[in-house]
Amino acid sequence: MKVLVINCGSSSAKFELIDMTNEQSLAKGNCERIGIANPIFSYKNLLTGEKIDKMEVPMENHTVAVELILKTLQDEKIGVISSVDEIDSIGHRIVHGGEYYEKSVLVDDKVIKNLEEIAPLAPLHNPAHIMGIKVIQKLLPGKKNVVVFDTAFHQTMPAKAYMYPYPYEDYTDLKVRKYGFHGTSHRYVSEVAREMLGKEDSKIIVCHLGNGASISAVQNGKVVDTSMGMTPLAGVMMGTRTGDVDPASVIYIMRKRGLSLDEMNNRMNKQSGILGMIGTSSDFRDLDTAKKAGDEKAILAYDMFCYRIQLYIGAYIAAMNGIDAIAFTGGIGENSVGAKQHICEALSYFGIEIDKEKNAQRLPGNVELSTKNSKVKIYKIETAEELVIARDTYKLTKE
Amino acid sequence: MKVLVINCGSSSAKFELIDMTNEQSLAKGNCERIGIANPIFSYKNLLTGEKIDKMEVPMENHTVAVELILKTLQDEKIGVISSVDEIDSIGHRIVHGGEYYEKSVLVDDKVIKNLEEIAPLAPLHNPAHIMGIKVIQKLLPGKKNVVVFDTAFHQTMPAKAYMYPYPYEDYTDLKVRKYGFHGTSHRYVSEVAREMLGKEDSKIIVCHLGNGASISAVQNGKVVDTSMGMTPLAGVMMGTRTGDVDPASVIYIMRKRGLSLDEMNNRMNKQSGILGMIGTSSDFRDLDTAKKAGDEKAILAYDMFCYRIQLYIGAYIAAMNGIDAIAFTGGIGENSVGAKQHICEALSYFGIEIDKEKNAQRLPGNVELSTKNSKVKIYKIETAEELVIARDTYKLTKE
Repeated sequence: MKVLVINCGSSSAKFELIDMTNEQSLAKGNCERIGIANPIFSYKNLLTGEKIDKMEVPMENHTVAVELILKTLQDEKIGVISSVDEIDSIGHRIVHGGEYYEKSVLVDDKVIKNLEEIAPLAPLHNPAHIMGIKVIQKLLPGKKNVVVFDTAFHQTMPAKAYMYPYPYEDYTDLKVRKYGFHGTSHRYVSEVAREMLGKEDSKIIVCHLGNGASISAVQNGKVVDTSMGMTPLAGVMMGTRTGDVDPASVIYIMRKRGLSLDEMNNRMNKQSGILGMIGTSSDFRDLDTAKKAGDEKAILAYDMFCYRIQLYIGAYIAAMNGIDAIAFTGGIGENSVGAKQHICEALSYFGIEIDKEKNAQRLPGNVELSTKNSKVKIYKIETAEELVIARDTYKLTKE
Repeated sequence: MKVLVINCGSSSAKFELIDMTNEQSLAKGNCERIGIANPIFSYKNLLTGEKIDKMEVPMENHTVAVELILKTLQDEKIGVISSVDEIDSIGHRIVHGGEYYEKSVLVDDKVIKNLEEIAPLAPLHNPAHIMGIKVIQKLLPGKKNVVVFDTAFHQTMPAKAYMYPYPYEDYTDLKVRKYGFHGTSHRYVSEVAREMLGKEDSKIIVCHLGNGASISAVQNGKVVDTSMGMTPLAGVMMGTRTGDVDPASVIYIMRKRGLSLDEMNNRMNKQSGILGMIGTSSDFRDLDTAKKAGDEKAILAYDMFCYRIQLYIGAYIAAMNGIDAIAFTGGIGENSVGAKQHICEALSYFGIEIDKEKNAQRLPGNVELSTKNSKVKIYKIETAEELVIARDTYKLTKE
């Protein structure tokens, strides 16, 4: 009863093997730079802690990469299974499900066809996901594959939240609308928050803050709005992404700098955000260090990062006309004591009150961080996207 | 003691003559389609009500247009002055003051030079404004000119609100940042709201809702954030403008439709918003009529229009960590009973409670529309941009 979770990018394949009898993660790893110079393989046996750390291995294509993954999982010394027969099914993380999918589904020909149709919306991701499915089908024939979409949980948004006020035909012809991403995380974290809250009728804001970051408003278990948009660029400020800017500034910068569409897309997605502001790193921990050292640009970038989250929290309290809990997750959301404190203290008007001491303790697991008097619960919740993918996969293949 | 207020666009010149002894507006009008086919002149004597309604007059350039304005103001039958000697000074509405101006100033050579330098930020407006100043200087030599900026009131914003997380050099090299617009209206309306509130320490959200629309958060008389951005495109949904969208969707639509920078800029600024959604009109009154008739797209567009304002109100309560009053102004803000009710009812969690009956009465002037129990005051305030320009002009020329 083991599920292999796989996330194929255009030159990468992240994987994790989970035993569903006890939801124990057995091993995980990553193939990077597949098909380009100096490919790298990383692997960790989570039972023994043994690992392969950034080993250079030839990987000319995804087939070779997946073969290496399967071989390593069965390796006598550092493997965790004795045969691929132990792998029950495979769960694929898919970035874009367009308007087709509001939940995970078993892979069949129709799914592949739909993924191909949606590919223009996620040109870097969906073709790689399709390739990943085909490689797995070839190397592990007869096993069931499930696709789990980053967009699915957000498909409950009402039209007033997902529509953009472009000419209407940009929606009908080109499918331009808000889709939202990180859905697997928002779903898992909002479910945990709802349990911690002990309320079915609940208004929860999930702040998934990692290198990519997104915020969602989840009312009674359904997303009513989310900060990412048609693509994962929109919303709050991120490691290398701008988030929201004046759309006309896109045109202005392209014109002034003579940039092509690809160059501008790259500038907004890969060279902006924290990296764009401080120039040296996209990592929030580096930003935090530079801020504490008194670097002026870092202080500003830190303030911008927190302020833009603060605005979204206010906006989503308005969207739901209420709030029961805020849940922080993702690398920054789980680990940055300062950011959580900074954001919550700026929102005291809403009756949001963080327990500074408890927050500073950095307790493991899922923790309530609000004071007793806080009108709004504040949670730190450890996200578990791979586990959710494995659960969906397991469930669908058993039905 | 009469001040001529003038707003020169690239092919237009709006004007109003105000007697500053009693702040009485004497006459106003508009020259449209200057220098292009079929120019149109409109004029109204505000003392008698007599008017010239969309008369076709040759106007090959702005000099001819301003000559016509001055001649009409002195006309024996419908004029309001007997000589241009009665015009004390001229106040020019200027869209973009860049980072130079946080208040109105007397025109001198340095001002013209700065306006020229800022022109790339407002390529359609600032060159026209400069031309307007030069024409007035030629036709009314020796009179003092004052420039009043749409951006000035917003210059108090903190950097965390006005900076965009692009690569930092886009700010230093290209001056890409949030400036905000409609500042004269936000300033006037927030001042009136502050007086009505009777509190110096005040947190006020101004919703200027017209064909262009913007929202500002004004704390203790200073703007802390505003919804328009580097250009007047950003923020809430407008008559023909998108407002905020995923910045990557700009690239996507250009690519898919093969649009040039100018075509995309035009699409976002002139063909989107209400017009883009319903296709037949950019006028909120038409949208309202279509919505009441049950048109599905109109119902959606109306919901989007109100929802996006609702989100900004929530965001700006968060920005100020509090709220004393919301002030509605502009054509839609002052006149649409339905929009005000719709927006306020969606925000009851904040203690915002509109007096529906009083709202429906459509009382003239500046009116409190909140119930006695409302924690937040709701005002309808009639904006008076020309009066503010005249006041600034009068004050600066008397110093």
